[in-house]
Amino acid sequence: MDLKSLIRDVPNFPKEGILFRDMSPLLQNAEAMDFVSRNLVKDVDLSQIDYFAGIESRGFILAAHMAATHKKGFLPIRKAGKLPPPTLKLSYALEYGSAEIELPLGNSRIMIIDDVLATGGTLQAAIDLSKLAGYDVKAVAVLVNLTFLNKMKFNNKEVHSLVQY
Amino acid sequence: MDLKSLIRDVPNFPKEGILFRDMSPLLQNAEAMDFVSRNLVKDVDLSQIDYFAGIESRGFILAAHMAATHKKGFLPIRKAGKLPPPTLKLSYALEYGSAEIELPLGNSRIMIIDDVLATGGTLQAAIDLSKLAGYDVKAVAVLVNLTFLNKMKFNNKEVHSLVQY
Repeated sequence: MDLKSLIRDVPNFPKEGILFRDMSPLLQNAEAMDFVSRNLVKDVDLSQIDYFAGIESRGFILAAHMAATHKKGFLPIRKAGKLPPPTLKLSYALEYGSAEIELPLGNSRIMIIDDVLATGGTLQAAIDLSKLAGYDVKAVAVLVNLTFLNKMKFNNKEVHSLVQY
Repeated sequence: MDLKSLIRDVPNFPKEGILFRDMSPLLQNAEAMDFVSRNLVKDVDLSQIDYFAGIESRGFILAAHMAATHKKGFLPIRKAGKLPPPTLKLSYALEYGSAEIELPLGNSRIMIIDDVLATGGTLQAAIDLSKLAGYDVKAVAVLVNLTFLNKMKFNNKEVHSLVQY
C-alpha cells in the first residue's frame, strides 16, 4: 500500500522552513489504518507484548488503534502532570529548552509507539523512562521515520517504521 | 461488564478536593476496551458514520480504538496550533480562563468521542466547532459521565455513556 500518497506535505508549518508531514488523510482511511496497525508488528512476537504504549498525543492514536486490532491493552506515556500517582517522570533536552514525560509504574512487557521519529529525543526518553519505571520494552515502532534527522541507535533496539523520508 | 471496578478513584488529584477517575486499569484491559468500543455505538447506525472524532488527548485513545474496532476513519479535534491549514478554531470559556480547539475543514459524517463528560464545556465546543467546520455530527459519546456536573442538553443530541457517577 502506498502510504506516502496518504501523507500530505505542508511547507512552512508550524514555522518557516519546516516541511510538515500531515497524516490526516491516512488517519481518515480505515483500510490504510488497518494496514498500518498490522504491518507495524510484522516482525514482532505479539505473544511477548502486554500493552501498546503510546506517546502523547499523536502516538495515542496509533497505539490505541493497534491495541484494538491486536486485542492488547493500552498504556499512556504522557506529558508530565496529568497522571495520578504512583508515576515516574523524566526530563529531557529538546533543541530549545526541555520537556518532561510521565508514566505509571509497572512491570509489563510493552511495545512503544509514536507517529513520527525526527531527532529521536522523545522516543529515546520514552524508552529510558519505561525501563526505569519497571517495564520490559520489547519493541519500538513509528509510522514515519525522518531518517535524515536521526542517527540514534536506541539501545540497539531496531525502530520499526513503514514510511521513510 | 463491571467497568467501574476498572476505574480507580484517586482523591485530591490533580488538586485538593478533586476526586480523579483514573481509567488506566480499564485502558490496560483488552477485553474491557473491546466491550467499551462496541457498546458505545450500541444505539448508533454505523452506516451513517464516516469517522470517529476524538477530542485531544484522552479522547484520541477511545476514538482510535473505536475506529479500529468498527473499521472507520479517525479525525482529531485538537488543541489549537497543531494542525496545518485549512482549519477552523473555536475559543470557549472554562471555569477559569479559556481554551481553544481546532479541526480540519470537512463535510463528513462523524461521531464525537471523549473520555469524561464533566461540565460539558469542551464537548459542547467540539460539537459547535464540528458543525461550523462543515461536518454532520451524527452521534456523541463519552465513556464516563459525571452527571452531577453537567446539565447541558447538547443541542438535543443524546450523549451516550457507559459509566455514570
